[in-house]
Amino acid sequence: MTEASSERIRVRRLEERGAYDRESLDEVLDEALICHVGFITDGDPYVIPTIHVRDGDTIYFHGSAASRMLRLMKNGAEVCVTTTIVDGIVAARSAFHHSMNYRSAVVLGTARLVDDDEERLRAMEMITEHVLPGRWSEARHPSDVESKGTLILALAIEEFSVKTRSGPPADDEADYALPIWAGVIPLTTASGEPEPDPRLADGIEVAPSVVRFSGS
Amino acid sequence: MTEASSERIRVRRLEERGAYDRESLDEVLDEALICHVGFITDGDPYVIPTIHVRDGDTIYFHGSAASRMLRLMKNGAEVCVTTTIVDGIVAARSAFHHSMNYRSAVVLGTARLVDDDEERLRAMEMITEHVLPGRWSEARHPSDVESKGTLILALAIEEFSVKTRSGPPADDEADYALPIWAGVIPLTTASGEPEPDPRLADGIEVAPSVVRFSGS
Repeated sequence: MTEASSERIRVRRLEERGAYDRESLDEVLDEALICHVGFITDGDPYVIPTIHVRDGDTIYFHGSAASRMLRLMKNGAEVCVTTTIVDGIVAARSAFHHSMNYRSAVVLGTARLVDDDEERLRAMEMITEHVLPGRWSEARHPSDVESKGTLILALAIEEFSVKTRSGPPADDEADYALPIWAGVIPLTTASGEPEPDPRLADGIEVAPSVVRFSGS
Repeated sequence: MTEASSERIRVRRLEERGAYDRESLDEVLDEALICHVGFITDGDPYVIPTIHVRDGDTIYFHGSAASRMLRLMKNGAEVCVTTTIVDGIVAARSAFHHSMNYRSAVVLGTARLVDDDEERLRAMEMITEHVLPGRWSEARHPSDVESKGTLILALAIEEFSVKTRSGPPADDEADYALPIWAGVIPLTTASGEPEPDPRLADGIEVAPSVVRFSGS
């Protein structure tokens, strides 16, 4: 475990589950398809799911110029970006020690509007590639109108923490003698058979990115 | 689509994706294993993943009495509970129209501390059952000490919205002629082979709840 970069980001509960190294953070950010962005609007907290991508020390977000969340971010609102991967259900002998195995990352900060055309295009490419690797080279690239209608925000990775639980249940010592099965049910995200667009023209094969992703 | 119960909960972007009926909400809350709770601490937004369960018109949360989030909720802090289920990757012909299929619910409000013993025990049972149906009757129930160390918070379902995307890509009309595969890659949560606790005593069979959940 390294040190927290600030007091407010420090993992309080179950400190031994906290980590502050970039390797742990990047693993969670890169594996998770989506994140949840927390912000304050009219004095109240609000949390919205969105797609993100990490590029080096930056997390990019994109969306419509009409998005409330992106407009607030653009105007310098403080945000909390939380990404959670659920790895399993921990079935302990006692109800009390039931838990989840998970990896969760929290990044705090204020975003900047990306207005450099090259960085904007690269962010759009990386967001597409984050969700479906290899797809950018297959798809039609953004037109000027599409690009102009898309806000790109960048959050520097400076203040963050990662919280992880892994491994078997941690029951009270006396409970290990109970005749109750205990262990972990691993959970993963599985992809099903690709569903072609009903308007797909005849003779178009499933795209290589989709074949690779779905393993079909 | 029904009406939003308040202006602040109304779905702004892509209004046609918004719903305000309890059936849509309950489906998302009941299917999602975890939610993300947004709250304000020291003036800044914060988002933490946690386990929840819905019981009728109430969402229950539980955790340690030392949890910052639960202490804030106990003290009447406004929270935003967001739950997201990712149903698929939408691969459009244009990079711009790439999307996700998802169901996301947002519930706003302030929680109340549950101090009635009967309601507390029922909430603990329901939280356990939400994650792993059938487990409560298999596990050792909470002791007095465990129960006293557990905070239970209840959020009334009053102000909420659901946002959903489903179905095939929505490309620009001209792009349908492009020779690019388009469609949806469905995503689900899959459970793997249960991993017995290394300290499991000999001769204990996998619990019925675990067999049912993992389909093994």
